[in-house]
Amino acid sequence: MFFKVKTTEEVLSLLREFEPVGREHVPVSKALSRVLSEDIVSPENLPGFLRATVDGYAIQAKDSFGATESFPAFLEIAGEVKMGEIPSVTASSGKAVRIATGGMLPQGADSVIMIEYCHLLDESTLEISRVVSPQENVIQPDDDFKEGALVLRAGRRLRPQDVGVLAGLGVLETAVYRVPKVAIISTGDEVIPVEEKAKPGQVRDINTYTLGAFCEQKRAAPVYTGRCGDDFDDLLAMVKKGLEGADTVWVSGGSSVGTRDLTLRVFESLEKVDLLVHGISISPGKPTIIARTDSRALFGLPGHVASAMVVAEIFLAPFLATLSGEAYLEVKGRDIVEARLARNVESVSGRDDFIRVRLLKDGEGWLAEPIFGKSGLISTLVEADGLLRVGRNREGLYRGDIVEIMMLR
Amino acid sequence: MFFKVKTTEEVLSLLREFEPVGREHVPVSKALSRVLSEDIVSPENLPGFLRATVDGYAIQAKDSFGATESFPAFLEIAGEVKMGEIPSVTASSGKAVRIATGGMLPQGADSVIMIEYCHLLDESTLEISRVVSPQENVIQPDDDFKEGALVLRAGRRLRPQDVGVLAGLGVLETAVYRVPKVAIISTGDEVIPVEEKAKPGQVRDINTYTLGAFCEQKRAAPVYTGRCGDDFDDLLAMVKKGLEGADTVWVSGGSSVGTRDLTLRVFESLEKVDLLVHGISISPGKPTIIARTDSRALFGLPGHVASAMVVAEIFLAPFLATLSGEAYLEVKGRDIVEARLARNVESVSGRDDFIRVRLLKDGEGWLAEPIFGKSGLISTLVEADGLLRVGRNREGLYRGDIVEIMMLR
Repeated sequence: MFFKVKTTEEVLSLLREFEPVGREHVPVSKALSRVLSEDIVSPENLPGFLRATVDGYAIQAKDSFGATESFPAFLEIAGEVKMGEIPSVTASSGKAVRIATGGMLPQGADSVIMIEYCHLLDESTLEISRVVSPQENVIQPDDDFKEGALVLRAGRRLRPQDVGVLAGLGVLETAVYRVPKVAIISTGDEVIPVEEKAKPGQVRDINTYTLGAFCEQKRAAPVYTGRCGDDFDDLLAMVKKGLEGADTVWVSGGSSVGTRDLTLRVFESLEKVDLLVHGISISPGKPTIIARTDSRALFGLPGHVASAMVVAEIFLAPFLATLSGEAYLEVKGRDIVEARLARNVESVSGRDDFIRVRLLKDGEGWLAEPIFGKSGLISTLVEADGLLRVGRNREGLYRGDIVEIMMLR
Repeated sequence: MFFKVKTTEEVLSLLREFEPVGREHVPVSKALSRVLSEDIVSPENLPGFLRATVDGYAIQAKDSFGATESFPAFLEIAGEVKMGEIPSVTASSGKAVRIATGGMLPQGADSVIMIEYCHLLDESTLEISRVVSPQENVIQPDDDFKEGALVLRAGRRLRPQDVGVLAGLGVLETAVYRVPKVAIISTGDEVIPVEEKAKPGQVRDINTYTLGAFCEQKRAAPVYTGRCGDDFDDLLAMVKKGLEGADTVWVSGGSSVGTRDLTLRVFESLEKVDLLVHGISISPGKPTIIARTDSRALFGLPGHVASAMVVAEIFLAPFLATLSGEAYLEVKGRDIVEARLARNVESVSGRDDFIRVRLLKDGEGWLAEPIFGKSGLISTLVEADGLLRVGRNREGLYRGDIVEIMMLR
């Protein structure tokens, strides 16, 4: 079967067609980092009352008109506003009521004069040396949020301050998208559990741990489905198990052509399956397979973990955002750092090269130093701060070029 | 008591003097985002055996010398390497052994010729049309990590790939710093639990939720200690309770001078206490109090949540990194986006102004649009993508200036 290798953009576009995995409700105390599935509209006016923004005296602004240090105005102190209570006194004309920041203005008052411009002549007489305007140093009952106003849009991943505002509005339960579940499967006759001592020829199962931690970092839930050798029936059984308990299945492990072909044959043997991608014009990561069965995507990832992580950062991160319902356009400037390239980089035209770089700071800003090394080394992964993309229409980049580095965090 | 307002740098420097809160061991499956308290050195060579990086035939390189498409060399096929096993065959001179990527080279072989340059003449005869050099397409037993080599430094917050490498090396338990516990206390007579309906004059307890979520986001553990009114004995009891169960105590809530003075008096009444900071030359956030008792820091945060969040981003985030043992210098370019300023910004000389901005993308890159609004509004917090710092030696910035935006994430 002939299958054209796809470009980065074609693959990203295919992956955007998947739907969020579902919805649920969570209490506000568990809402951090969850993605809203519905717009939040304000259930009430906030703060809900005329509120002082400074410490001072609540007055009728007109009583201050004309007041200066040389010609102060004099007001009668009518009492004090207690925090958290409806004032029992009234600020009628000529009267001033002591008030603290956050206090509710008494009836009659339309402004607050800051304590700095007030002078107590005696227990009941206040001298003020400045004019205040109506509405000065107060916020209106609906200045922050008006009842029915849009507060937060569906598709937003909630930050600490967003959670705080929900709490402030009394929104105690929130409709959010479910956290996507990712079945992680490791294959390859040479792959052994991490608890075992590797004999010559064997390697420990790095991929399961790396991809599982990657899911957690992206707010998805890894489902550790299992590990199997290069056997059709075993892998098929494991993929089916993965499909039962998860929203997407990621197979990785063996790095030989044989293992890749096996993964492809297993995917193709499933019912109602479409093969979406068989090879991507990127390096590393070319031998990636993507299939779809019903609403779920199956990934055959490159066996080598350094390649698998490039595929994860470039494709699986936005894919998980889509499954999570995250409005990806809202993700602003995330994880991109501008840097100068420390040396020339060669690249093959016709594919996107993703080069691991180390970032160093010098007097002029960030310097991106490409990490070279034999393909197949894992150590480059822990040395890398980020990835540099050399687009498929370029044959390289020059020392000193300003480049965008996608941070690996 | 006279106490000079401190600068941003002075406060950051004081906070850097605190120590990480302690150490513990975690299994590798729980190590993501934890901070290493000890260097990791490789317990063994990785991969530990001579390994193929391509699919092909393992040979002695010298047998290929002189081979071209016109004058190929011929080798006898001696067998096949099974993945994950020590090869049972030997690649003596004139012999070739089939091998897949990741396989262990048989004795005698020093290189692998890629399958693309091989042609099977019959079951046992291989024609090769290219020269390979010794060590070509293989990695040495200690190419990735040599036994005893430094893999990851203490102070590093572990990323997915770092966790993967630990698993790959068989490091199943890791020494990490303990997660700092933060006692969160909310004060103010006007502050009510979020479950309650706010009567005029009252506000729900936004700060507890915002600061708690902030802690979680920064990988600290909030300890919700409680809420109390503006009462010395109540607040003192609550601060003492906080000190029992946490590594640092954060008091916030009321926004009036009275509440701030109360917090100060409560801190000063503790045993063996030093007042470190009473006011910071920043806006918003000036009325911040920091005290120290034994090894623990006590914070009196501005009551208004928008101000408290500025203090949190500027001071509490690096403080939590210090308590977590994170080597802050390793934090590279984190959360900083360069943008053009969309309009002029005025600022008061002598203090650092932190201005909330919205980020928009246009043809030339990121545009930072200051969010203005009455002080005391919470809604600006959910609109803001980041903070712009206008240094204390500036009186403002101009439209079009290139500025660094600290992202609020």
